[in-house]
Amino acid sequence: MKVGIVGYGNLGKGVESAISYTKDMELVGIFTRRNPKSIKSNIHTTVYSIDTLHEMKDAIDVLILCGGSVKDLPKQTKQYAKDFNVVDSYDIHDQILEHFNAVHQASIEGKHISIISVGWDPGLFSLNRLYGQAVLPNGKDYTFWGKGVSQGHSDAIRKIDGVVDAREYTIPMQEVIDKIKSGEDLSISNKDMHRRECFVVVKEGSDVKKIETEIKKMPHYFEGYQTSVHFISQEEMNMKHKNLSHGGCVFRKGVTGSKHLFHQVMEYRLTLESNPEFTASILVAYARAAYRLANEGQIGCKTIFDVAPIYLHEENRKELIKKLL
Amino acid sequence: MKVGIVGYGNLGKGVESAISYTKDMELVGIFTRRNPKSIKSNIHTTVYSIDTLHEMKDAIDVLILCGGSVKDLPKQTKQYAKDFNVVDSYDIHDQILEHFNAVHQASIEGKHISIISVGWDPGLFSLNRLYGQAVLPNGKDYTFWGKGVSQGHSDAIRKIDGVVDAREYTIPMQEVIDKIKSGEDLSISNKDMHRRECFVVVKEGSDVKKIETEIKKMPHYFEGYQTSVHFISQEEMNMKHKNLSHGGCVFRKGVTGSKHLFHQVMEYRLTLESNPEFTASILVAYARAAYRLANEGQIGCKTIFDVAPIYLHEENRKELIKKLL
Repeated sequence: MKVGIVGYGNLGKGVESAISYTKDMELVGIFTRRNPKSIKSNIHTTVYSIDTLHEMKDAIDVLILCGGSVKDLPKQTKQYAKDFNVVDSYDIHDQILEHFNAVHQASIEGKHISIISVGWDPGLFSLNRLYGQAVLPNGKDYTFWGKGVSQGHSDAIRKIDGVVDAREYTIPMQEVIDKIKSGEDLSISNKDMHRRECFVVVKEGSDVKKIETEIKKMPHYFEGYQTSVHFISQEEMNMKHKNLSHGGCVFRKGVTGSKHLFHQVMEYRLTLESNPEFTASILVAYARAAYRLANEGQIGCKTIFDVAPIYLHEENRKELIKKLL
Repeated sequence: MKVGIVGYGNLGKGVESAISYTKDMELVGIFTRRNPKSIKSNIHTTVYSIDTLHEMKDAIDVLILCGGSVKDLPKQTKQYAKDFNVVDSYDIHDQILEHFNAVHQASIEGKHISIISVGWDPGLFSLNRLYGQAVLPNGKDYTFWGKGVSQGHSDAIRKIDGVVDAREYTIPMQEVIDKIKSGEDLSISNKDMHRRECFVVVKEGSDVKKIETEIKKMPHYFEGYQTSVHFISQEEMNMKHKNLSHGGCVFRKGVTGSKHLFHQVMEYRLTLESNPEFTASILVAYARAAYRLANEGQIGCKTIFDVAPIYLHEENRKELIKKLL
């Protein structure tokens, strides 16, 4: 299968390298809005201007969209979904349904497959919340993120006028984890389970008070969270905030039984040295699924919930039953 | 949806209680080979003789088969798959493909859906091995079970001539877990990662040496494992070996990246106070999937790999996107 990448930031670079680990994919090219000559790819992939993308329609089976969720994907995914099978990592939880509807319509019109909001949250964590609730309907789930840099949140800050660079750390509240582990049944929202710490570089002469307020009041991303903002120099940013490690866990605690009650715990944990590389690896697995679904003649927008696991793995059903079931 | 249970051991009892936690299922009855009058159900479900099952064909949407994998399911699943949508927990890993083929043929003939080998291993653990390999193709996975009683292994011992009762504990080798956690890349088989400890009650006058040998050489279950066998009285069994707790974990450790390499770890862990209750809860979620697949007109045998997560949860796509994605 032939894959194209749109956008060559951390995520695009991760997708490029993740494809090199597969046996069944060929990377056709990287498509960028920048001057293609200004980009040197990590592993010698050809870089094209985004304007040439439509000429290469027939040479690409699946397009992996590696832009940001605030300004890029809401336009790009529905735009390209008409002419390509696409996969994106749109991550603004509150607006996924709206994004889904727009992309679905475009995919149906173009008779293509799209899979949106692919990553680890939304993504593998969402899957584990679903499996947990389906298997243990009488229970509660808790999702913790971090400590780690959130690409989406950092990206959101960078779009603010006057901001040159930014890094956001999501940090779980240890006292909440301790309470849950000690068996307490908490009714608590994500906003009370985590705090957000932001490091921001601004243009000289910017109104930092205004920027701080804009960050703290940004809907979906920061509003309602305990957020701290630190303004630092680009030098300090480069020295102290290059690490892209992340992680987190999803707990499902439930009770089964009639006469005797039994406690059952399902726990899913990720420990990642590079968040964008890992998200990229998930995108590549779901690009395989998009290709296979398209070959079956399926059309429209799918989420990670709609994709049967078997579509993700290189091997066929018989081998998977023998080796993994 | 209307559900029937075949078999009323620990697993059947678990299914009965798991159904009581759902909003969309109605339990039609328990079907047994024993005298129905000899069975008092935990929560007042009607108990029928297995012989009446065929008369009730039209009253049952999905049949959950709760027999053992050694002697019951190889016959039962393919037998009932002709006339019913069925779900089973067939757990002899080496023979799942053979079971799959037999059941598939019956389901196709009868134009029904079957889902086999549903549980946590085979089952949720298999899923996590698949997701792990698909996302991190450059890596290794490790599955640990226990400490806990394996229903399948205990059942297998109980089928031996002269055995009255039996309990098998699967125990992970702590030294192997320690090595993997310390970062060592082990190439090691399941047989070197666990030992098996068996407690067995026999009929008076039985040849215990012969029974011990029969256990240790039993293919698929014990052959090749470090196995110890202890013969005890029924009193000791009842006093010391009633606990049905279990658990385990699946690790996937992988590397991503091109210029710089990053280590990524996916970890799935179950901590279960009752193994059969938990397996039963998974069976019930997949019974929902079987019902929905059948309503779409799909036929044939499926595994847990073939079922998209969305089929498992009571709620619809829109709600799931809003609440869980």
